[in-house]
Amino acid sequence: MSLTLPPEGELHHVAIGTFSTEAGVDIPDVTIAFQRWGEFRGNPSGSNNVLLVEHALTGDSNAADWWCEVIGPGKALDTDTFCVICTNALGSCYGSTGPASEHPDGGRWGSRFPAISIRDQVAAERQFLDRLGLERVRAVLGGSMGGARTLEWTIMFPEMVDYACVLAVSARASAWQIGIQTAQLSAITRDPDWYGGDYYDKPNGPSAGLAAARRIAHLTYRGELEIDERFGTAAQAGENPLGPYRCENQRFAVQSYLDHQGIKLVERFDAGSYVTLTETLNRHDVGRGRGGLNKALASSKVPTMIVGVDTDILYPYHQQEHLSRNLGNLLAMSKLSSPVGHDAFLVEARQMDIILRKFIALTEQTPSPHDFAARSGAYDI
Amino acid sequence: MSLTLPPEGELHHVAIGTFSTEAGVDIPDVTIAFQRWGEFRGNPSGSNNVLLVEHALTGDSNAADWWCEVIGPGKALDTDTFCVICTNALGSCYGSTGPASEHPDGGRWGSRFPAISIRDQVAAERQFLDRLGLERVRAVLGGSMGGARTLEWTIMFPEMVDYACVLAVSARASAWQIGIQTAQLSAITRDPDWYGGDYYDKPNGPSAGLAAARRIAHLTYRGELEIDERFGTAAQAGENPLGPYRCENQRFAVQSYLDHQGIKLVERFDAGSYVTLTETLNRHDVGRGRGGLNKALASSKVPTMIVGVDTDILYPYHQQEHLSRNLGNLLAMSKLSSPVGHDAFLVEARQMDIILRKFIALTEQTPSPHDFAARSGAYDI
Repeated sequence: MSLTLPPEGELHHVAIGTFSTEAGVDIPDVTIAFQRWGEFRGNPSGSNNVLLVEHALTGDSNAADWWCEVIGPGKALDTDTFCVICTNALGSCYGSTGPASEHPDGGRWGSRFPAISIRDQVAAERQFLDRLGLERVRAVLGGSMGGARTLEWTIMFPEMVDYACVLAVSARASAWQIGIQTAQLSAITRDPDWYGGDYYDKPNGPSAGLAAARRIAHLTYRGELEIDERFGTAAQAGENPLGPYRCENQRFAVQSYLDHQGIKLVERFDAGSYVTLTETLNRHDVGRGRGGLNKALASSKVPTMIVGVDTDILYPYHQQEHLSRNLGNLLAMSKLSSPVGHDAFLVEARQMDIILRKFIALTEQTPSPHDFAARSGAYDI
Repeated sequence: MSLTLPPEGELHHVAIGTFSTEAGVDIPDVTIAFQRWGEFRGNPSGSNNVLLVEHALTGDSNAADWWCEVIGPGKALDTDTFCVICTNALGSCYGSTGPASEHPDGGRWGSRFPAISIRDQVAAERQFLDRLGLERVRAVLGGSMGGARTLEWTIMFPEMVDYACVLAVSARASAWQIGIQTAQLSAITRDPDWYGGDYYDKPNGPSAGLAAARRIAHLTYRGELEIDERFGTAAQAGENPLGPYRCENQRFAVQSYLDHQGIKLVERFDAGSYVTLTETLNRHDVGRGRGGLNKALASSKVPTMIVGVDTDILYPYHQQEHLSRNLGNLLAMSKLSSPVGHDAFLVEARQMDIILRKFIALTEQTPSPHDFAARSGAYDI
């Protein structure tokens, strides 16, 4: 048995048909984009070597790029051994169906694109794996929004996941997260060029709003120690933020840095997708409809490693401690020590290398419930 | 000797003439509003019983109201013993001159109001004390923006201050603070009803922008633990934030709470003052022009108590630890333990009572440099 996979690293699109959201809306003709690295080995319906990597909010399927320190030949997620698959999440703008995609009835989806949840992203990804012919993966791994999806994978489809590694996320959105994420949504939807999400045929998109949202978001992705050590109260070169009148083009260095982060995102990301994906984070709650948070976590059978960052203000470390106390099958827990904050799982290459090598080693030492079920099949009477 | 003071608790206005800002702009006809509680005793030019209390960003001179648990007869700042004076800061909108005030040439100040600094607020308050005939105070106390002013008092005019108590602030703005404060300024200045600050004769002010700014700010004033314990992922009563399409009037409870915070501020505060005062926090830096931060702090001769909050994300506790290590004359240090975050200095009444009673006791036990200078006058040859 094998899988038909595109050439290594190449962006590929799979039509998964109609997708029905958790809140009851049908999205016809859904496409999921993906990339893969490393050769597939094993059984598509049983034990195999697939690592399914889940990207963060504004990420894409090019995991070997944004996680280049840990994915590749000889690296922690070793593509000589494993077949790494990364899809673009439903609602994003990097090849999968989202608000900027063409609607079957013409024009862009825009405001016709429904509100989706983390669970919807996972269910759509499962539909994608079905089309691919893959019924089980060795592991699912991801941080932030990717961590939320990884966690939902272990609860929605535990029969398909041997192991999981969940980084820098919580069991549900906290009220603070909903608040700061809503502040970002508000920055976009208050932009006069937003047009309720139907700006695609207008001369301008809500670039100013998206940039403002990103500036707020970036301050939650980065630790205040790291930002302060880099910029402090320094003026941007050639500008005077201490002049007699406040002037928006006379900036502190940190303002210029944040402006740059905003502009960079506007150049590469769609505001409609940003709103859609941020909303999935607001709706993140593994307890919903499952008898509550800790009951849902306790029901998890997939051996799962939890990773957090000591200086994360977006997903504070106590949230990963909560996961570790309540998950039904905790494989291990690990803490990144870094002034960087939330983004440490993307940038602290040395520590991430150690942590992911430990994760892979633990998966080799620990039988998955599926292996156990297979070996002890005699008991399944 | 005595002072002419208005009746206890009554709002009074003092004309202090022209004020010249740090960045070189003259503001003519400046008024400072103030209130006082308790009888004045002592020498206006020497030892006396005045406690000068400094309010936070959107505060006013009514300290006996917003700090009602600690100011009053028999309370920690005992108005049977002390004369508490609280001014409204320069740039605010509660009686002192700010952007919403009438300009001598007609209309409101609006964009003609210059950028001011924490130092300007202190210098204007000193000009006010001069008009009052007060050359020295027993203590200056304040938190957040009030803490920044208190700290500047000890460095700009140490000869006028016997003791100081600085709460929940830092020696300078951190880059993270500048970033999140600039996000708030941007929310206001991007509002089409802002008109560059000259909205006073327009039908609408930038209410939506000011509310958006406040929602962001509030998330920095409150700890995520406290907000999450209150609201979690609960829906606002009668609303469904999990519906098939994202809808701004279908909210999580925390969104409704933050909307309420925004609306409350719009009803009581001027957007121009919010921008002006937030800018003073961006410019807060006791090191500027004084040979750097730690040299400036080391030069401080006023016995100063430092207070911080363990869960403060706006002015994290390590910033108060930095002050305690570097201040030239540290009286004591104290930590508020609270899930509430930054605002704990306003709401944790029991702990604040203990802390401020300790401060007052320490001032009684510790000679001020002024007392020492008086007693050892013989050495002043």
